Amino acid sequence: MLTEIPYAKKQLAEEKVFKDPVHRYVHVRDQLIWDLIKTREFQRLRRIKQLGTLYLAFHSAEHTRFNHSLGVYEIVRRMTENFKEHGEWSGEYRLLALASALLHDLGHGPFSHCFEKIFHTDHEEYTRKIILGNTDVNKVLKRVSPEFPREVAQVIDQTHENKLIISMISSQIDADRMDYLQRDSYYTGVSYGMFDMERILRVMRPSKEEVIIKESGMHAVEDYLMSRYQMYWQVYFHPVSRGGEVLLNLALKRAKHLYEHGHEFKQAPKYFIPFFEEDVSVDDYLRLDEMVVNFYLQEWINEDDEILSDLANRFVNRELFKYLPFDGSYITQSELEDLFKSAGIDPEYYFFSDSFSDLPYDYDRPGAKNNRKPIHLQRDSGELREISSQSAIINSITGVHRMESKLYYPKEKILEIEDLEIKGEIINILNQLA
Amino acid sequence: MLTEIPYAKKQLAEEKVFKDPVHRYVHVRDQLIWDLIKTREFQRLRRIKQLGTLYLAFHSAEHTRFNHSLGVYEIVRRMTENFKEHGEWSGEYRLLALASALLHDLGHGPFSHCFEKIFHTDHEEYTRKIILGNTDVNKVLKRVSPEFPREVAQVIDQTHENKLIISMISSQIDADRMDYLQRDSYYTGVSYGMFDMERILRVMRPSKEEVIIKESGMHAVEDYLMSRYQMYWQVYFHPVSRGGEVLLNLALKRAKHLYEHGHEFKQAPKYFIPFFEEDVSVDDYLRLDEMVVNFYLQEWINEDDEILSDLANRFVNRELFKYLPFDGSYITQSELEDLFKSAGIDPEYYFFSDSFSDLPYDYDRPGAKNNRKPIHLQRDSGELREISSQSAIINSITGVHRMESKLYYPKEKILEIEDLEIKGEIINILNQLA
Amino acid sequence: MLTEIPYAKKQLAEEKVFKDPVHRYVHVRDQLIWDLIKTREFQRLRRIKQLGTLYLAFHSAEHTRFNHSLGVYEIVRRMTENFKEHGEWSGEYRLLALASALLHDLGHGPFSHCFEKIFHTDHEEYTRKIILGNTDVNKVLKRVSPEFPREVAQVIDQTHENKLIISMISSQIDADRMDYLQRDSYYTGVSYGMFDMERILRVMRPSKEEVIIKESGMHAVEDYLMSRYQMYWQVYFHPVSRGGEVLLNLALKRAKHLYEHGHEFKQAPKYFIPFFEEDVSVDDYLRLDEMVVNFYLQEWINEDDEILSDLANRFVNRELFKYLPFDGSYITQSELEDLFKSAGIDPEYYFFSDSFSDLPYDYDRPGAKNNRKPIHLQRDSGELREISSQSAIINSITGVHRMESKLYYPKEKILEIEDLEIKGEIINILNQLA
Amino acid sequence: MLTEIPYAKKQLAEEKVFKDPVHRYVHVRDQLIWDLIKTREFQRLRRIKQLGTLYLAFHSAEHTRFNHSLGVYEIVRRMTENFKEHGEWSGEYRLLALASALLHDLGHGPFSHCFEKIFHTDHEEYTRKIILGNTDVNKVLKRVSPEFPREVAQVIDQTHENKLIISMISSQIDADRMDYLQRDSYYTGVSYGMFDMERILRVMRPSKEEVIIKESGMHAVEDYLMSRYQMYWQVYFHPVSRGGEVLLNLALKRAKHLYEHGHEFKQAPKYFIPFFEEDVSVDDYLRLDEMVVNFYLQEWINEDDEILSDLANRFVNRELFKYLPFDGSYITQSELEDLFKSAGIDPEYYFFSDSFSDLPYDYDRPGAKNNRKPIHLQRDSGELREISSQSAIINSITGVHRMESKLYYPKEKILEIEDLEIKGEIINILNQLA
Repeated sequence: MLTEIPYAKKQLAEEKVFKDPVHRYVHVRDQLIWDLIKTREFQRLRRIKQLGTLYLAFHSAEHTRFNHSLGVYEIVRRMTENFKEHGEWSGEYRLLALASALLHDLGHGPFSHCFEKIFHTDHEEYTRKIILGNTDVNKVLKRVSPEFPREVAQVIDQTHENKLIISMISSQIDADRMDYLQRDSYYTGVSYGMFDMERILRVMRPSKEEVIIKESGMHAVEDYLMSRYQMYWQVYFHPVSRGGEVLLNLALKRAKHLYEHGHEFKQAPKYFIPFFEEDVSVDDYLRLDEMVVNFYLQEWINEDDEILSDLANRFVNRELFKYLPFDGSYITQSELEDLFKSAGIDPEYYFFSDSFSDLPYDYDRPGAKNNRKPIHLQRDSGELREISSQSAIINSITGVHRMESKLYYPKEKILEIEDLEIKGEIINILNQLA
Repeated sequence: MLTEIPYAKKQLAEEKVFKDPVHRYVHVRDQLIWDLIKTREFQRLRRIKQLGTLYLAFHSAEHTRFNHSLGVYEIVRRMTENFKEHGEWSGEYRLLALASALLHDLGHGPFSHCFEKIFHTDHEEYTRKIILGNTDVNKVLKRVSPEFPREVAQVIDQTHENKLIISMISSQIDADRMDYLQRDSYYTGVSYGMFDMERILRVMRPSKEEVIIKESGMHAVEDYLMSRYQMYWQVYFHPVSRGGEVLLNLALKRAKHLYEHGHEFKQAPKYFIPFFEEDVSVDDYLRLDEMVVNFYLQEWINEDDEILSDLANRFVNRELFKYLPFDGSYITQSELEDLFKSAGIDPEYYFFSDSFSDLPYDYDRPGAKNNRKPIHLQRDSGELREISSQSAIINSITGVHRMESKLYYPKEKILEIEDLEIKGEIINILNQLA
Repeated sequence: MLTEIPYAKKQLAEEKVFKDPVHRYVHVRDQLIWDLIKTREFQRLRRIKQLGTLYLAFHSAEHTRFNHSLGVYEIVRRMTENFKEHGEWSGEYRLLALASALLHDLGHGPFSHCFEKIFHTDHEEYTRKIILGNTDVNKVLKRVSPEFPREVAQVIDQTHENKLIISMISSQIDADRMDYLQRDSYYTGVSYGMFDMERILRVMRPSKEEVIIKESGMHAVEDYLMSRYQMYWQVYFHPVSRGGEVLLNLALKRAKHLYEHGHEFKQAPKYFIPFFEEDVSVDDYLRLDEMVVNFYLQEWINEDDEILSDLANRFVNRELFKYLPFDGSYITQSELEDLFKSAGIDPEYYFFSDSFSDLPYDYDRPGAKNNRKPIHLQRDSGELREISSQSAIINSITGVHRMESKLYYPKEKILEIEDLEIKGEIINILNQLA
Repeated sequence: MLTEIPYAKKQLAEEKVFKDPVHRYVHVRDQLIWDLIKTREFQRLRRIKQLGTLYLAFHSAEHTRFNHSLGVYEIVRRMTENFKEHGEWSGEYRLLALASALLHDLGHGPFSHCFEKIFHTDHEEYTRKIILGNTDVNKVLKRVSPEFPREVAQVIDQTHENKLIISMISSQIDADRMDYLQRDSYYTGVSYGMFDMERILRVMRPSKEEVIIKESGMHAVEDYLMSRYQMYWQVYFHPVSRGGEVLLNLALKRAKHLYEHGHEFKQAPKYFIPFFEEDVSVDDYLRLDEMVVNFYLQEWINEDDEILSDLANRFVNRELFKYLPFDGSYITQSELEDLFKSAGIDPEYYFFSDSFSDLPYDYDRPGAKNNRKPIHLQRDSGELREISSQSAIINSITGVHRMESKLYYPKEKILEIEDLEIKGEIINILNQLA
């Protein structure tokens, strides 16, 4: 009588590899991982860009979340290979770590940030729903065991009891960040996101509570944290990219408003309706990828509503708003909005104040603004030390919170204001802000 | 009285740069180039992938024709900088070369190869139509002079009298190929497409008829030609990518068939109709980008026609056909198609024989299969020599014509054949082909 | 009558290029630069490693000062190309900047740090002497004008009246540092020294007093300063490399001691004698390259003096001392030296306390420990701001002074101590330090 | 009672890594390998440049054989890791493969090619002698077993019965070549030597007789062979580098001649004497590294013999001979030598005809000029095919034998010929050859 190999142990007859520009190759040996990659929910990530509107600022940033998800999986795979040689790693959680890494972004939708603001969806919630719902991913995960989907969901939403695995995927130095910094750096062509991941992987050690770093790896972590800081300010917060988000935001807001007020769309926005009504099933959610969003934005250019048509056209054809530094000190936002209104420009759709901030490294300590877990260094004696107590550089940036704000507005509309006095006043104010 | 600077001489107040992972930076100084990039027709290239379905084989090949077009422009810009120091280059054609380089792919549609086969469109024809038609690009080009659009179109379709400029953009060693080999190599993560472009640019010299190569650059050209050969066989002809094209091909053919036979589509394929009817205006053409094609393919999954639904689903969710080497020697295509038919599988939509071939280097000589112009080396004495007469390596590959054929079929359908005898026969044949 | 072209304007018939792994190519067009490279004093730099004993820690760090000097020249050449487009740069100092960049390290000898400590030479002084003395370099420089050698020497020793040119070669963000960080990073194989030099070059502007940075380049400078910090602590201060210096130091000290005490060397150290006597002519100095030093160290292995033989053997065959952190708090240096003495180990030659420190960025301000010039950012309005007042990251590291000390000793000799009590005491102390 | 671990099984407590720019890291776990690296004979390879005089053409090619030897070891280590998963590899030969890889170049002396021509030494013979002689390397190897040194020597001189291990280190696609192509490419800064080694390692399979290549890796091997071809013609055969060898050759020949004729050297060339007398012990051989050779060449500049002084000066200060293509068809070598003689230029020391040739790929077949073993591809069925029967590209270069010859001569001496008629005649001939 043949004993069947349990699914969790099934290996592919021959290792599959994906050629990857960042990690050279992504290696797959487990049947489970192979089957997950083939599901339609995972394939859908090919239709969601990793960096949303950033391609408007860095034309070459066109890679998708599929691309990134394979990368995070590969980094966790390498971690588990390295951990084998160390005591605290039993191996039984290996597959859980790999599957969670692969699926950690499964619930991301198109241009997540805008969508979440306008439609009050939450990609983390949908990640959980896709994993636990009636989906191909769920079916594949269940082949391991009936509880396996829930375990994967718990690792991803950080409620699982195994804190080590959570920290491999979500912490201040995790596989997610290590992949995206390098990957986004590679695709944008900037060098800032590069750091010595090989070295960091070599000095990572599993402990009960978290991944810790051998003391000799301190400088590599410093470099990683600085890379992260640079990528935020030089790439992720690029005002041109945020200008694209602003337009998308306003266009979606307008479309929702029109829907709510009974506007007759030439092309009924059927896939948007659940979002407008804020009653979005998993299927509705999965359906709305970037192809579909772009299709409708192109349709909306031809809608009769002037505002929607203009905003959609601006987004599709990259006719962005101008931006200026704006912190409300010279003139408040509401004062400026009133001026716009009096000039016949609707600030609801033609004015946007955008703020963003970053905290390069911090941890839960008296006076800290968050409750993040620290990065721990391990001395040869085994003793753990929080990293900023050892590194002058990290100490100097710990808790440094930097914030910037920008004002977005349509320059063309300002130039067309008919009331010359108001026009002059607005132009004068904008010049002061510059 | 102020004399206005003619548009052709207008320079941006400050140079604009695009960060580019392949060329580090793309530099723009001419007002014309900047204005062309901003047109909607050029921005549209952001919605057309450079490598069509290749992302199905190399997941990281997600870059667009926008990306590539900037690169070709940048290479030609560098050529013109280098040429300045050499006699034959007068500079008056500089802007023509730059604009032609930037716009050379303007008429590419989504998945061009499939579309052209099914709908009998021709991207070169549409490039010309967009440049000469009522478009933003045409308006910008006309600012240089009324004849300028026609000149650009002539350079691109290789009928312009200035053969030197044509050869910068279209020849056996042109800016187009030099960009795409490196760029596709970068994005796929393979190393094969890399060669020493800096060296090639340094040894290129302008002559009346063409770009020629200083003799000392021969080895760099050898390396370039081998890169090209490798990229064709290792990347561009990858059978998984062609398998995606096969599915797209069959799905479009089915949709057209249904349209022609009065099928009532749930979602009317309005943007496809001009293509189905083979009466496609420039506007119709520009509208149908990859976002729109993908939208409809996702729609078609829900159509009532089983074949269309199946093919669309396979394409969208990457459930590809299997493939086998197939040259018709063991069994002919029509014999095999008959067998499929007798098994209840429609070979019109579930059988595809695909051939592809490459000619690494050749030129118009007695016995040659084409009329390509040779690459010429220039000796110190000024004398020109055709490159294969000087390079043993290039000589050994000149005229080497390699061809391969593959058969694509749906494995699942074979396994479901009810007539066991026919099923056995087909499986036996496929095993023989393997 | 033919008017001769003045030497300063002479250009090579064809540009010469050096293939360079860091800058791709080094470009030479000026006859002056070409002639300087060919001088024997400049060729001698091929026999001086850029990083001294660092190859003992990073085996691949085998590049020379010749290599680096070409790189610094190339960076300054690019600066002058960029500066052409900006007001403050007249061009008349171009050749002075290039020659000074090329020759800035001309006076470096083998393992400069050790030599300067033991023999009280000073590489900056010898740079000046070589440029002004009876050398090939001096002859070539004089072809420009009789005063040209002195001008070059003044730029290099920072006394020239043109502060802009000095700051191109010697400042907190100069061509020297930009080259060595990248080059040393490339050769050691670490990634830490990489930063976006292309961007920095694009935002550098010439002013009367110094090179300034456009405000938009602030993040690139942050990244550069962090690279510098990392390279110091991860590479340049590597304790294994310093361990090599320690041995060399002690061996030279011993050889000098022996010479002073009338030791009869088997192979008379003729090229060392001027150094032992501290009366070193330019010719003596130029003669003593790393080939010669290594030759004698290999000879000294066979000398009758046991200490010299042992130290030379350890250096040549990489039998390094051990090292431990040492700050004098647990036991003072002189106490430990006394213990060594009582164990029969001469601390003069078998004990070394080594300190090193780094200041990532600082400038002359109240309370600062040095008088370095700040890096200035230029706003669009033209106004200058010291960089740490604008960058939170740079502010956080300004004036951060980090220092470390290590104790070097021969483990084997400790294990051979005959008096077991003293041996035990020493081993116990060393264990406490570890 | 404690059983001691046999030396062959001894592992380091913690893996040691060497940072390597080509392979990222070189990993050492075996005590044997660690001990071998520390021997003085292996450390000596730090004083022998990998590419001899090539730094005269590519200034950045300053790396040593130490550097390369670690790389070859690392590649073989990776091969053995990969082979573990395949049947034919028992693992018992692992250490033999690693040690042989590390030591394969142990017998290389300074500028081997010149030395071997002038002094009739043979680096392969000295590799064997060092491994089998009274050396530190021999002592370490013997710790494995008394026969182990002989086995290592047999693998390196290709007489060992295990053909698989031999082919890992010495074949048409071995670790030696794979390392040096990439490494020399990295250090020179050219891109030609790069190929996809990761892919080749993945498709290599151990068989009884040799390493074979899975058929799917054919294109990667094509690319590797073309890289090799390019490196030979663009880098290794660079005429400037060979010009350096020519000078060294002539200087050594002159020094030997003077020694044989009783010349009194100012500085007795003691380390050369065994070479002049062609009676070179292992110790004599090991002593003469590049430091020593350079020391004497610098000494010889000051010798009274005008020819030796001139040749040594030319080598040290890079005042190279000119070169011209020369195949003896326009004038024979002896005719030209006679002309030189009649002009008072001694052709023995001021004339050199240099030939070099390369065979990119060939194997022992009827009509072949050598007896190299072919590269075999393995089909899925297990069947082996010689690679040129499968690859059109490789077939086209198989047996293509390319040869070039150059004439080297001192231009300055020609210009100084007093007899104007002979001078004119010689100049005329040289112009014809150009």
